Amino acid sequence: MIGISQIGTYIPETKVSNLDLLQKFDVSKDFIQEKIGVLHRARKGPEQKSSDLCINAFDDLKNKVSVNIDEIECCVVVTQNPDFNIPHTSAIVHGKLDLPENCASFDISLGCSGYVYALSIVMAFMQANGMTKGLLFTADPYSDIVDENDKNTALLFGDAGTVSLLESSATLIPLSFDFGSKGKGYKGLMNEEKLYMNGRAVFGFSATVVPASIRKLLSKLNIAKENIDRWYLHQGSRYIIDTIVQRLELDENKVVFDMYEYGNTVSSSIPMLLSKDIDSLRPGEKIALSGFGVGLSWSSAIFEKTN
Amino acid sequence: MIGISQIGTYIPETKVSNLDLLQKFDVSKDFIQEKIGVLHRARKGPEQKSSDLCINAFDDLKNKVSVNIDEIECCVVVTQNPDFNIPHTSAIVHGKLDLPENCASFDISLGCSGYVYALSIVMAFMQANGMTKGLLFTADPYSDIVDENDKNTALLFGDAGTVSLLESSATLIPLSFDFGSKGKGYKGLMNEEKLYMNGRAVFGFSATVVPASIRKLLSKLNIAKENIDRWYLHQGSRYIIDTIVQRLELDENKVVFDMYEYGNTVSSSIPMLLSKDIDSLRPGEKIALSGFGVGLSWSSAIFEKTN
Repeated sequence: MIGISQIGTYIPETKVSNLDLLQKFDVSKDFIQEKIGVLHRARKGPEQKSSDLCINAFDDLKNKVSVNIDEIECCVVVTQNPDFNIPHTSAIVHGKLDLPENCASFDISLGCSGYVYALSIVMAFMQANGMTKGLLFTADPYSDIVDENDKNTALLFGDAGTVSLLESSATLIPLSFDFGSKGKGYKGLMNEEKLYMNGRAVFGFSATVVPASIRKLLSKLNIAKENIDRWYLHQGSRYIIDTIVQRLELDENKVVFDMYEYGNTVSSSIPMLLSKDIDSLRPGEKIALSGFGVGLSWSSAIFEKTN
Repeated sequence: MIGISQIGTYIPETKVSNLDLLQKFDVSKDFIQEKIGVLHRARKGPEQKSSDLCINAFDDLKNKVSVNIDEIECCVVVTQNPDFNIPHTSAIVHGKLDLPENCASFDISLGCSGYVYALSIVMAFMQANGMTKGLLFTADPYSDIVDENDKNTALLFGDAGTVSLLESSATLIPLSFDFGSKGKGYKGLMNEEKLYMNGRAVFGFSATVVPASIRKLLSKLNIAKENIDRWYLHQGSRYIIDTIVQRLELDENKVVFDMYEYGNTVSSSIPMLLSKDIDSLRPGEKIALSGFGVGLSWSSAIFEKTN
């Protein structure tokens, strides 16, 4: 079975401080810290594109684990801010990394639910085609589309890229997934010329569907929530995480939170968190992941560390 | 195992005649007919978006087979011309068709290789998650991005949409797939503000990789090419199909060709062809599919009609 063996990440060095914007948006430091949960936002250079964030994340991966380029059979990028609409960004990454010709490459267009969705999509695709090593990238730089004067979005999003090495020999493997869509609500989060978010609608949606999705998964696997060792929820905002934790009555010590210093990085948020913990997971431990947002869309999963 | 049970298609009624453009581009009728292979190009209305092409294809599907919306567990759109970059077009289609909340929805960004790739991706995803009924859409309207004065692209592309009903009970099932990428060549076909194509580069690429990919698949399955009953090659142009047929020494009577009246419809070209034949395939017959283009990218498959 295919699992996650390692994760590389990239956060741009440049940070924009939300603390400098309290007056502009008439908000308090408490609001920035307790509700939004973002003190500084990571900001890529204007010349950096999604494929560059992917390549930088791959450099980090190579520092953690030896990767033989010639063995990679699958290269997938999750993004809704591709370098170009044509070609797919995974083709550009394929070229930049000099991946072999028999390496399948495609992009998945999903937002904040994208990483968890893509884990299932790519693992299933690899398994069905007898592939043993693949790269799953996330890179969705919202700094290119956010209106810096829009209070609903300007304080929230940060840029980042990640890459997960998926291998048949990995020991962090999926037990089950849950997926869902509320397409009728798609206007809650969309990009025509600039990003638009109906914060209240997206919050209400997330606070309802995520607890339900997680309960459904736990029930399907017949696992009590107390037996989940760590919770990796999409870092939408401090407030939405607190709300989900409260509604599910989770042990706060098991809920990972880390967005103060870079922001909501869309499909990169969960692999960003997981990259810090993956080496310390112990055999038998179970973790839960849940992504939610653009679509409106959600995806949850429970993984187990084996061996 | 998941297979294809039926295909709905949509071709816009409006056609643009290439025969009216002989003088403008200084080409002969013979060239239009024998090399390009497109006499008329299907053209959507300026207000029609990819999701509209999908919905129209779904209407056609419903005329062919009864579809219970509440049973659909998966809704995937292949496109590189989405309604918006955010959200994914599958979310909009999900909303318009009133699909259930437990229906997974995502987009795959690929061009002319997209349908064959997506068959594997979606079938594997459905299988891994125990899903029994899914909809796979293709819609990539190039009329929005083609420069009408660019001889390399203006005579070639047509608009269309298709939807394939994928079901665990279907009898047209995959035997094996082959995938590949030449990311270093991505500039051969790309869209910054308008579509750009290096026709010679894309032709040379396709004429090389497609025969190799098909030979590889036949050899893997230990099937002689004479035992393939029908060939469905991406309708890139009359000339590229003739070249591939020649290089593989295929029986021309078994090679489906049909783009004169609507053009190269990108990821819709293969399901457009297959939709006309799917009801007449006989048990035991084997068919080969191969898509190639944007990326640069290719994907081939061999399917068998069972029962």
